[in-house]
Amino acid sequence: MIAPLEELITALKSLPGIGRKSAERVAFHLLGAPQGEVERLAQSITKIKTDVHRCKRCNNFAADDLCDICSNPRRDQETICVVGQPWEIMKIERTGTYRGLYHVLGGLISPMDEVQASDLTIDSFARRVREEGTKEVILALEPKLEGEITGMHIVSLLKPLGVRISQIAQGIPVGRDLEFADEVTLSRAIKGRVEL
Amino acid sequence: MIAPLEELITALKSLPGIGRKSAERVAFHLLGAPQGEVERLAQSITKIKTDVHRCKRCNNFAADDLCDICSNPRRDQETICVVGQPWEIMKIERTGTYRGLYHVLGGLISPMDEVQASDLTIDSFARRVREEGTKEVILALEPKLEGEITGMHIVSLLKPLGVRISQIAQGIPVGRDLEFADEVTLSRAIKGRVEL
Repeated sequence: MIAPLEELITALKSLPGIGRKSAERVAFHLLGAPQGEVERLAQSITKIKTDVHRCKRCNNFAADDLCDICSNPRRDQETICVVGQPWEIMKIERTGTYRGLYHVLGGLISPMDEVQASDLTIDSFARRVREEGTKEVILALEPKLEGEITGMHIVSLLKPLGVRISQIAQGIPVGRDLEFADEVTLSRAIKGRVEL
Repeated sequence: MIAPLEELITALKSLPGIGRKSAERVAFHLLGAPQGEVERLAQSITKIKTDVHRCKRCNNFAADDLCDICSNPRRDQETICVVGQPWEIMKIERTGTYRGLYHVLGGLISPMDEVQASDLTIDSFARRVREEGTKEVILALEPKLEGEITGMHIVSLLKPLGVRISQIAQGIPVGRDLEFADEVTLSRAIKGRVEL
């Protein structure tokens, strides 16, 4: 295969969720696509690095100084949901059940990967809670070791401030067979049982 | 969601085989990727239009005037395999069973899509067969109406030249259950049965 085609397929293949076959299909599509479409794609990829910033308040992706959520006065200003990464906000927003603010840590504390609390926006979050008079903090961190360590660290920082802290429920995914749930999830689902 | 991110996701989603979820996953990956990686991807996409040409002899993708196959003197110069699109060459090459040349029509005759013989490289192919003294032409066109119309047209043009013309076998895919074969395929498989 000729070099420019091979290079593009290699670049596409390195993206998450794109295998050799998908990469080839996309590359061949682009070969046959109008010049304008190909240029638009290349430009929108470049712009992702130049035009996307981080919200000065919550560290979410933002086009300006503040993100869409922080600059929306109709959001509940007294509740902050804490997530590891900005894309987790989108998932929660899609549920349509949360009307408060967010805070993006930029990762999770991980002794394995040498990520410490000081590498994340935890300190600025604690300062934010103090300054903004936040009433409730909801932890929506990944349900694995790193998420739990990070959660415990945040709890230890915020407890003295008298703020209410909760964690989103862990349990059986809706619509999934009980049979396929792992033991840890099942045991948490039992511990976290809700009275009917 | 902010505009540059939404634009990139929309652009990615329009690519074949990439749905909303994959597009988001790729966009978020690029947001967090090093500037260099993102630029390389954008450049390799742009280069696909500027650095990829068509082979002057067979219409395959080429980095120079002639493609890798046409410029390889060790290929059998007397046999030409006819395909609709350049990527079909790659599939055939991977089988490792063909050592001749190719000709890319650039599509198939399609009354439905108003693609006529004159829109394809059929005339230049007939001229090529005459000038190069080709001995055998193998039709590897898609086994659907358009492929058959195109094949019949090529046969009518080449028959007077006395060249041997064959078509790749149609039948049951290897390793697939007979039960799932459609009736047309099965009927062709029976007609094309091979004595053992």
